[in-house]
Amino acid sequence: MIIPFLALALAAQTPATGATKPSDPIATDWRAIPDDELLVMTLHGGGRVVIRLAPRYAPVHVANIRKLAQAHWWDGETVYRAQDNYVVQWGDVTEKKALPADVVAKPPAEYDWAASDAVDRLTRRDPYAARAGFSADGWQIVGNGARSWLPHCYGMVGVARDLAPSTGSGGDLYTVIGHAPRHLDRNIALVGRVIDGMENLSTLPRGKGDLGFYQDPARRLPIESVRLASDLPAAQRPHYQYRATDNPRFAAYIHERENRQPPFFTVPAGGADICNVPDPVRRAPDEAGAD
Amino acid sequence: MIIPFLALALAAQTPATGATKPSDPIATDWRAIPDDELLVMTLHGGGRVVIRLAPRYAPVHVANIRKLAQAHWWDGETVYRAQDNYVVQWGDVTEKKALPADVVAKPPAEYDWAASDAVDRLTRRDPYAARAGFSADGWQIVGNGARSWLPHCYGMVGVARDLAPSTGSGGDLYTVIGHAPRHLDRNIALVGRVIDGMENLSTLPRGKGDLGFYQDPARRLPIESVRLASDLPAAQRPHYQYRATDNPRFAAYIHERENRQPPFFTVPAGGADICNVPDPVRRAPDEAGAD
Repeated sequence: MIIPFLALALAAQTPATGATKPSDPIATDWRAIPDDELLVMTLHGGGRVVIRLAPRYAPVHVANIRKLAQAHWWDGETVYRAQDNYVVQWGDVTEKKALPADVVAKPPAEYDWAASDAVDRLTRRDPYAARAGFSADGWQIVGNGARSWLPHCYGMVGVARDLAPSTGSGGDLYTVIGHAPRHLDRNIALVGRVIDGMENLSTLPRGKGDLGFYQDPARRLPIESVRLASDLPAAQRPHYQYRATDNPRFAAYIHERENRQPPFFTVPAGGADICNVPDPVRRAPDEAGAD
Repeated sequence: MIIPFLALALAAQTPATGATKPSDPIATDWRAIPDDELLVMTLHGGGRVVIRLAPRYAPVHVANIRKLAQAHWWDGETVYRAQDNYVVQWGDVTEKKALPADVVAKPPAEYDWAASDAVDRLTRRDPYAARAGFSADGWQIVGNGARSWLPHCYGMVGVARDLAPSTGSGGDLYTVIGHAPRHLDRNIALVGRVIDGMENLSTLPRGKGDLGFYQDPARRLPIESVRLASDLPAAQRPHYQYRATDNPRFAAYIHERENRQPPFFTVPAGGADICNVPDPVRRAPDEAGAD
């Protein structure tokens, strides 16, 4: 078959029977993502997008998002922007819908935080930050020694905002559908990452208006509902697991990503940028084929 | 309007009347791309994709591609693979279609070249290469001092191949639709860049099979034709221009991309990776609205 250039990556997920590699995770490397850190968006037509929230890094924005979901605030709103190689964005395109009373209208600028984490796991320097690595629970993190922040990798979810000093309420969100727009790092609150159903956003027709807004309102894709998994009936609640990073198996995984091997590759890069080393996330194994 | 976070980029393209910035191109910075370096692919349904070829960097592969286009080899073939955050690929999915007699079946590995260009234009080191910059005619180029190569940025077009030492004939091609898979640099021949109609590939439904291949052949998107612009009737021939890089205005453009400014940005990155500094390409001005 022509171009199996992901064959090695697939092989990493499905080792030959009995074989183990230093980068293979063990069972306890897979850890549950809490139900109240999963945001489940159902789109018109049935497409489902699941977002892992990052409450530790943007607590006020994520608290807002939880309240908006619990108020069913997004139900009936739309995905209204799709800009090629940039972002897809959703929420209230009119900017007139009232926020629930307990939502903080002007959150603090949760764009970075005082570095307490020792982030230094990749071999090569990142062009945007002196340090790049991972939290123990699988978030890609970069920093300069004094401050740390989340990088705008593919699938990351951020809070749309107006000109500074606006920080956005969380009512309008976007996800990255192209090359990482890292210039947005430290300038916008990142609140999560799409961990399932990304193709339901990344394949949307691109908008013809400025910045990829749909000029024709009929092109907007209605949102049926957005819920925290913890607010769904138990039978409808999906479960996901991240891969723990604080172990030698994950270090071996990084090394593999930085040094691709034969039979396909002949020149290993010797390094990788942080967005090319995503933490693996999977559906809980007992839910395979559940949907 | 919420999130004008590309407002600055748009402003760079459309300065206020009478205003000039150091990064504004002058008329002679726009240079014609030769007609025989433009590959025009028309898809079922009418979508058109235009690729700028890179004959200087992969001469044998590009010569093959020109011969395949002139033999109408792709007409009736398909786009048969779409893998999210990776590539869309097209050509002969059966791998059985005979190549025209004058096509080189096993080209040399045109993956990099002995560095004669002084590539060193970006402020920060690239994680994959010690040097990163541009050819005078707008190609993003990276290198290590001894060798130079094209980076796998969004929209770049490469030659699908089997396991090494296969180098691929050029009959099967792919383009990058997600975060730059730079680990492929120096391991595959890059032969061009999609400069128009990218959304006709990037929005295709993702394949459900391994590596994003369409499991159901009915999902494949037929290719109506692939032609060199130089082989099209003059009235149907589109013209494009790249922006010359060997001038202070382009240096100012790089500086702008590396240091985004207020009123939207409050923390400029101070650098950028090469894939976030694309050379601007435009349709020839007298063809605006031609299609």
